[in-house]
Amino acid sequence: MPPFSRFTALTEQLPASVPFVGPEVQERQAGTPFMARLGANESGFGPAPSVIAAITEASATVWRYGDSESFDLCSALARRLDLPCEQIIVGEGIDSLLGLTVRLVVETGTPVVTSLGAYPTFNYHVTGYGGRLVTVPYRDDREDLEALRDAVLREDAPLVYLANPDNPMGSWHSADAVTAFARSLPDTTLLVLDEAYGEFAPDGVLPPVSDLAQLPNVLRYRTFSKAHGLAGLRVGYVFGTAETVARFHRVRNHFGVNRLGQVAARAALEDAHWLDHVRAQVAAALQRLAQIAEQNDLQPLPSATNFLAIDCGSAVRARSILEGLNAHRVFIRMPGVAPLDRCIRVSAGPASELDAFEKALPTVLAGLT
Amino acid sequence: MPPFSRFTALTEQLPASVPFVGPEVQERQAGTPFMARLGANESGFGPAPSVIAAITEASATVWRYGDSESFDLCSALARRLDLPCEQIIVGEGIDSLLGLTVRLVVETGTPVVTSLGAYPTFNYHVTGYGGRLVTVPYRDDREDLEALRDAVLREDAPLVYLANPDNPMGSWHSADAVTAFARSLPDTTLLVLDEAYGEFAPDGVLPPVSDLAQLPNVLRYRTFSKAHGLAGLRVGYVFGTAETVARFHRVRNHFGVNRLGQVAARAALEDAHWLDHVRAQVAAALQRLAQIAEQNDLQPLPSATNFLAIDCGSAVRARSILEGLNAHRVFIRMPGVAPLDRCIRVSAGPASELDAFEKALPTVLAGLT
Repeated sequence: MPPFSRFTALTEQLPASVPFVGPEVQERQAGTPFMARLGANESGFGPAPSVIAAITEASATVWRYGDSESFDLCSALARRLDLPCEQIIVGEGIDSLLGLTVRLVVETGTPVVTSLGAYPTFNYHVTGYGGRLVTVPYRDDREDLEALRDAVLREDAPLVYLANPDNPMGSWHSADAVTAFARSLPDTTLLVLDEAYGEFAPDGVLPPVSDLAQLPNVLRYRTFSKAHGLAGLRVGYVFGTAETVARFHRVRNHFGVNRLGQVAARAALEDAHWLDHVRAQVAAALQRLAQIAEQNDLQPLPSATNFLAIDCGSAVRARSILEGLNAHRVFIRMPGVAPLDRCIRVSAGPASELDAFEKALPTVLAGLT
Repeated sequence: MPPFSRFTALTEQLPASVPFVGPEVQERQAGTPFMARLGANESGFGPAPSVIAAITEASATVWRYGDSESFDLCSALARRLDLPCEQIIVGEGIDSLLGLTVRLVVETGTPVVTSLGAYPTFNYHVTGYGGRLVTVPYRDDREDLEALRDAVLREDAPLVYLANPDNPMGSWHSADAVTAFARSLPDTTLLVLDEAYGEFAPDGVLPPVSDLAQLPNVLRYRTFSKAHGLAGLRVGYVFGTAETVARFHRVRNHFGVNRLGQVAARAALEDAHWLDHVRAQVAAALQRLAQIAEQNDLQPLPSATNFLAIDCGSAVRARSILEGLNAHRVFIRMPGVAPLDRCIRVSAGPASELDAFEKALPTVLAGLT
């Protein structure tokens, strides 16, 4: 039976694409669960016990819609960032905020600049709103700031994406380089600065908030899905100038941020001890993952995130290793395009999950033809 | 400081509108909390104890992204509706699903038919995507099916909205009338059939699932926010033909439905006893609200929902009563346009909240000039 006949011309031509195939979907396809979940850069170290307690305490209040302004959370973020609340919007995860951003800027044919192999969900939104992706290759496994800026100027693009630290490679630019990049853009180009992994970055990687807070053409995105261990609760935020940020109010889903997410995120912000604990666990896990890689003659790349890109020598080999690990019920992912796809990407996780990776990897490598 | 200068022409002209001012926002404005929360048609009877237990049990798993297919919940819904999973999409509440629907159908200038005074959030989405709202007055406090169809034909509109039972009036059409309406529409017009309050409707109001399930131009929307008491967890679903429903996969936020929402909704579906309990509580509360209205010489309207529209005689009087009740810290709402705005709208709630309403109402009425 054909579908309804009058969808827009734009959506008629879109593919039924999924930026990522979720691990549960893969488990259903395989008919068996994963033993290690190291593919989605979640925090296997979990949310803080204080956060779990806050969720439990609030669970009986879920009959109430969430606060449409996420006021308590926004206020806590404002204190943390030393910004007024008006410069911050809380949303249903960075993915949702990226979608709203694209909707605010992109029309059919609008050129949007990003790096070839960078975040697929951003690309999904750009395509979904009819934009035209202009991609720039990575350079030495980092996003190429100069080439991104050249592409912006060449295309007169109103939107450019940069993740710092980067996903999927784990690489980074210095705060000074990012600030210089932001300032070098025309004021007619909006910089989407995705800092989802910012809590893992060493000092000197995230530009100080005040260095970019006065630029109307810069928006910075952060999340509770990574270091704070709340991926399943869908809370992210964006900050920039008050006037630019206010545009989200015209298009956002006002009651979209769930109540337990708001409560949990606020509790997570207050538990600095747990964040330190997670950072230490992640650092140790990345060190161990690097050792495992080297013991198997694979090359770990430097990382400022909670995952490790591991160079397998070629795309064919990386793909085979990924499939072999998946067959051993170890969930990992890999970049989608050359030359990044010579790597696999493995998330930091608890020791038992790294054990599974450590055990499976040599078997998988030995089985390669 | 002006905002970023290159937002789309469409979003540049949108107002920073909010379809509803949330109760928490009103509490902050007033500097004092509400004593009774009877304005958002939430379920003050709460989620089931079994649901709270399920949330608590799952709280430590929130570090994982939710299943991108909401498979367990979708499967449970499929069994309940006797439909294959492919005919159902779970989303972040009906509001989000309405936004996606509008995005799939509406371009700049697209005519969209709805009733004058019907759900503001649907209108927010239509305006937000550049659509042109064509409104039809209610007739005897019900949505006017004949006039809606006439407007669809006159405007050649690809989208029409109908809530059954209706919000904000609580009125309804018979299943037969709704089915006939759906079948009378051109196949080039998509019917958005909002059944958010369906669990409260008496027999003979909701068309049987199989009666409309083969129509590519009908989508039906239901939610866990009302009878199931999960407004704060943002879970709704839409069902229709597999081919029409599949279009949502092209534009939806694949990992947008939070994990605890999925878990809680599934638990709620399995607790038929609690649903019966809530329905009985709502029926009793509506009866009491009607008595309170009559004791104060106000006219309650019939309701097939979990709220009561109460005729106050005029818009000015209704507005004064609403403001008076709010001043007594009783949160209620009222329809936005004539002639519906001669009414206030009060949600069913626990006895203590109705007590506050009962106590405040005569004082408010006595104070009217």
